[in-house]
Amino acid sequence: MTTIHPFDSVTEAEIRLSTKLLKAYHGKDKIHFSQMDILDPPKKDMLRYLDAERYGKGHLPAIARRTYAYYYLNNTAPLFKALINVSSGHVITAGPIKNQAVGPLLPEDMHAIEQVCKTHPAVVAEINKLKLPDHIEVCCDPWMYGTDTDKEKEPLIQCYVYLKVKHDDANHYSLPVKFSPVFKMLTKEFVRMDFLPAGLDEKTCATEPWKQVPAVEYHPDLNGETKLRDLKPLVIEQPDGVSFSVTGSKVEWQGWEFRVVSNAREGVVLYDVHFKGRSLFYRIALNEMTVPYGDPRVPYNRKQAFDLGDAGFGVTANQLNLGCDCLGVIKYLDGMRVDGEGAPIKLTNTICMHEQDYGILFKHMNFRNGNYVVTRRREFVVQTIATVGNYEYIINFVFDQVGAITVQVRATGILSTMPIDEGVSVPWGTTVGPGVMAAFHQHLLSFRFDARLDGDNNTVCYDDYVPMEIDPVINPNGVGYVGKRTIVEKPGSVKQSPFTNRTYKVINEHSINPVTGKPVAYKFEMPAKQMMVASPASYNTKRAAFATEQFWVTKYRDDQLYAAGEFTNQSIKDTGLGEWTSVDENVRDSDVVVWATLALTHPPSTEQFPVMPSDFMQFMVSPSSFFERNPALDVPLATNKANKSKYYEDVVATAAAVKGNNTSAASCCKTSSL
Amino acid sequence: MTTIHPFDSVTEAEIRLSTKLLKAYHGKDKIHFSQMDILDPPKKDMLRYLDAERYGKGHLPAIARRTYAYYYLNNTAPLFKALINVSSGHVITAGPIKNQAVGPLLPEDMHAIEQVCKTHPAVVAEINKLKLPDHIEVCCDPWMYGTDTDKEKEPLIQCYVYLKVKHDDANHYSLPVKFSPVFKMLTKEFVRMDFLPAGLDEKTCATEPWKQVPAVEYHPDLNGETKLRDLKPLVIEQPDGVSFSVTGSKVEWQGWEFRVVSNAREGVVLYDVHFKGRSLFYRIALNEMTVPYGDPRVPYNRKQAFDLGDAGFGVTANQLNLGCDCLGVIKYLDGMRVDGEGAPIKLTNTICMHEQDYGILFKHMNFRNGNYVVTRRREFVVQTIATVGNYEYIINFVFDQVGAITVQVRATGILSTMPIDEGVSVPWGTTVGPGVMAAFHQHLLSFRFDARLDGDNNTVCYDDYVPMEIDPVINPNGVGYVGKRTIVEKPGSVKQSPFTNRTYKVINEHSINPVTGKPVAYKFEMPAKQMMVASPASYNTKRAAFATEQFWVTKYRDDQLYAAGEFTNQSIKDTGLGEWTSVDENVRDSDVVVWATLALTHPPSTEQFPVMPSDFMQFMVSPSSFFERNPALDVPLATNKANKSKYYEDVVATAAAVKGNNTSAASCCKTSSL
Repeated sequence: MTTIHPFDSVTEAEIRLSTKLLKAYHGKDKIHFSQMDILDPPKKDMLRYLDAERYGKGHLPAIARRTYAYYYLNNTAPLFKALINVSSGHVITAGPIKNQAVGPLLPEDMHAIEQVCKTHPAVVAEINKLKLPDHIEVCCDPWMYGTDTDKEKEPLIQCYVYLKVKHDDANHYSLPVKFSPVFKMLTKEFVRMDFLPAGLDEKTCATEPWKQVPAVEYHPDLNGETKLRDLKPLVIEQPDGVSFSVTGSKVEWQGWEFRVVSNAREGVVLYDVHFKGRSLFYRIALNEMTVPYGDPRVPYNRKQAFDLGDAGFGVTANQLNLGCDCLGVIKYLDGMRVDGEGAPIKLTNTICMHEQDYGILFKHMNFRNGNYVVTRRREFVVQTIATVGNYEYIINFVFDQVGAITVQVRATGILSTMPIDEGVSVPWGTTVGPGVMAAFHQHLLSFRFDARLDGDNNTVCYDDYVPMEIDPVINPNGVGYVGKRTIVEKPGSVKQSPFTNRTYKVINEHSINPVTGKPVAYKFEMPAKQMMVASPASYNTKRAAFATEQFWVTKYRDDQLYAAGEFTNQSIKDTGLGEWTSVDENVRDSDVVVWATLALTHPPSTEQFPVMPSDFMQFMVSPSSFFERNPALDVPLATNKANKSKYYEDVVATAAAVKGNNTSAASCCKTSSL
Repeated sequence: MTTIHPFDSVTEAEIRLSTKLLKAYHGKDKIHFSQMDILDPPKKDMLRYLDAERYGKGHLPAIARRTYAYYYLNNTAPLFKALINVSSGHVITAGPIKNQAVGPLLPEDMHAIEQVCKTHPAVVAEINKLKLPDHIEVCCDPWMYGTDTDKEKEPLIQCYVYLKVKHDDANHYSLPVKFSPVFKMLTKEFVRMDFLPAGLDEKTCATEPWKQVPAVEYHPDLNGETKLRDLKPLVIEQPDGVSFSVTGSKVEWQGWEFRVVSNAREGVVLYDVHFKGRSLFYRIALNEMTVPYGDPRVPYNRKQAFDLGDAGFGVTANQLNLGCDCLGVIKYLDGMRVDGEGAPIKLTNTICMHEQDYGILFKHMNFRNGNYVVTRRREFVVQTIATVGNYEYIINFVFDQVGAITVQVRATGILSTMPIDEGVSVPWGTTVGPGVMAAFHQHLLSFRFDARLDGDNNTVCYDDYVPMEIDPVINPNGVGYVGKRTIVEKPGSVKQSPFTNRTYKVINEHSINPVTGKPVAYKFEMPAKQMMVASPASYNTKRAAFATEQFWVTKYRDDQLYAAGEFTNQSIKDTGLGEWTSVDENVRDSDVVVWATLALTHPPSTEQFPVMPSDFMQFMVSPSSFFERNPALDVPLATNKANKSKYYEDVVATAAAVKGNNTSAASCCKTSSL
């Protein structure tokens, strides 16, 4: 292992030191940690560092490694925050957070609440009323308690209770019951028993014996599928090795250079992104996601998750497995988090990286002589997968050979469900099995791109494509249309406008493309989508201003990383983009940051239960007259000498021959070369 | 070869017979063919056939094979059309088409015009004025002559002239010159010399000696790239064979059954599409594409291609090559067309089909015990690629394991270019090299889906997702939102509405999903896009009403297959959807057809020259509470025993060991099994 880079993930030693320093700082108070991680270095210093590193400009400045920690003392509010210099070994600052901030929950906290819930006498009393058969048991999903009032003073947890078959791979979300206890988050004291509506209104009823219905199961042991499909293996071979290299956090591939770093909150961060020697982005990450539900009935109205701020995509990241989560030759990176005691927990293989083929990159055939060129589109994928309770989120940053990054999100896992009475159909949800309904909801993800196109000062603009007026001289036939550029001068958001093909761009007004004579640009092609449906008066919206617009622009500040603010758990308002963009300042030709919201309105269907086939969301960030010509002309042309594809007929003949113990048919495999 | 299925492509024998019958019919008139192909069987008969074939209901009815032909007699208008019964061997009907219809052009016609153009004295005179150096020659791109008047009586061809380096792989579009001769399409007589504007207005000038500038080249021999990227091969192996079978035109894969058939106009058609034994679609095809350009200056205002109606995606289909156009184990199908004489020309390998991996299909990890299920998303791709002059269009129908079809279009090839004077920048185009400009344009593709969901009568509707009003009883917190369904009762189009997450659906009101209690559905998820930008008063729009809206609904009729009408070449108005949807008739619960327009507004960038990295457009057609649960629960879970992925470190170690002539490091390859 080389020396630690300022961007690198927190180390076990840094966590241990931070915990030790904080314990000493707080004396005999018992600390319960909520999160600890490395803090990003100050950008001002880091830019000097990067220039020294890349261009040998001066000496590498010393950048202190600093951690942050969120924690409670003696299991009571308020939440504390500390900053620790782990290079010099001292606590920089530590103290309570104002405004009733609530820290993210660790998996252990969730497990502990589930245990308390299942054994609390008030809950056991309700369970007993169900008179469950022997093969059925109770489980529970603790939910961060979304807000519908400013009055709550103490963090609470709502436990959604389900029945499940006694099997390690049973579906936990197929058999919801109609009671839902509420506990205090920190002390785990019982607060009250909520009863859940299961009809068209908020009417609830006392717990009755469970009317047996079959669970809808996903696992092969339970799902009743007796005949699996005949799916032949598809093996990705790289006989001559891979085209990428990874050294510590530094990745190089096909002209790209960047660092890939795991962290607790964002899961994966890309730093110092260059293509063909030119700077593109200082930092790229998914920074927040909110999942508001559209069921208006109490207590479902409080279902709104902030899966990064409330839990963390690194903290909940999957251990990825060879041949399952991606195919080919895979490089894994590990994650790290603390437990409640402040001890480091290494999270194995939370990030995987590999190459894949995705069809044709470019082709042209000269119809006059039949000559052609064709190249394959090779991609490099950086992937992480977070399981946040019921849902899995698969985050892919896909790099191509042209300088574009496609950000792709797949949502899979299990729908969050609630009970529904037989014969009832609700307009805000879909019945997905007997007695089980999945409410409409949205996934709204904020991706933060700290731009550094050809230099530190960039400008954000958007281009619309609008028809020219019919004019007897210049547009007599009414076919003309032109591009119209608008510069973003102040922080704020840009309205979506798909019908003018609006495209957001980051440009560098000091770097002129010699071919076009205009500033170089990278464009953000976002799909036009419905943003937050909930009323502006709702807490769903007040807590997540970022989710009301697709594209935001701010001026860079070191502490502005998360779109809904630093603390989202049980928040009553947004302390992120909603606040930051109210500042009246110039953002043109400055250190700008753009925030792209990817949105999915998700009305569930029966095909998405008991486990959901990946739902896709994606957008592309690509050079737009940034290079002087196609930057992939140096990609080798495709040939079957390299790619070794085969004719179906030959493969079928071989299979038949092998079956008949006669391999002669395999010898006639034709190959064509370019 | 088995017997011919009524849906199968035209055969060589059928073409020969049709030509023979037509020659006999027309006696001593000289026939010049424009297109000939099989005609779809009457649907009424074919439905009986399919039911007999699938369910054994009665005997297979005899379905006559019929061809159609477009042709000119003695190289003069009008265009003729004939229908021929090739089963019984007689001409059903043959006669002139009204309304000045112009037939599609064959590649030979284009070549012939290019030859006439380059050698015509008027053109040679202009070429001589260029005083070209020895290494440069002239080429030309004949363009179907879009319309800006109702007055033209005779089909014309506009020749855009370019210079090129004398090399078989030189770029034909990098060095446009400023004269553009016009010829009569049929007789190839010279009509006039147009001169091209190269500034901000329509000013033109006399031809002057060529001011030498370098061409922007794509081919490795010419493009100046001295160091190719080190891209290691990525080989798709299917060691146990493939999961699909192809028998004649019939394809079976992972529960899917359909027929894949090539034809001259649409390139590839899918017939009788079933998944898991249930009927989905009778017929699916790309049926038309229009490419209007946004440069208002004469003659560029007449640049509007209809690449299917004017030429044909089968006629211009590429011969696909192993290891180049797709990877893995490939099944190819051939196409067929006529030449001008009526002789059959077999087009080899115009369709390729293969399997590919595309990430995770579904995953869930139980966070309580770490158990998980994960399956890979296997896809089956039906691909064809058409080269229409400068542009390549890659059409993919991608089938998944859940019952969804993704229609993906990649546009690649070379931008259509025009001359631009030094120092000039135009608001309707991008300068992409010295003296060369690529005008803004659009690609608008119509995909026709003849629905047959669970039976012959279907209904089209669309669902919006709209906030509930804040209400003290049912929605006090303002978070509720509901689905709102609108049934399409009459033929016509549906407006786009991305901000209500509008989703178009085909439903069967007679087939109720037992879980939801509602009609089964397939949904069309279309990206919200800018449609035709040109004025409604322009010919661009008059000729292509289909391109003004995204989603259209009509009642099925045998002769309504092409969105802009049967004859698009030099048309003056749309004779397709624009006409058909003006009929006042019921389409609910009837034999409905939906037409989905995929649109791309394309303002070129320098990265897209001299050859364009694939630009993507896609939409998905997927079951939406059509099945009772996830239909892919019978897909085997992913294991590395099957997938044989490897650790990066092991591959790097192996490579190092091989280099050092020591293979021991390779032996420690870890594998994990589920």
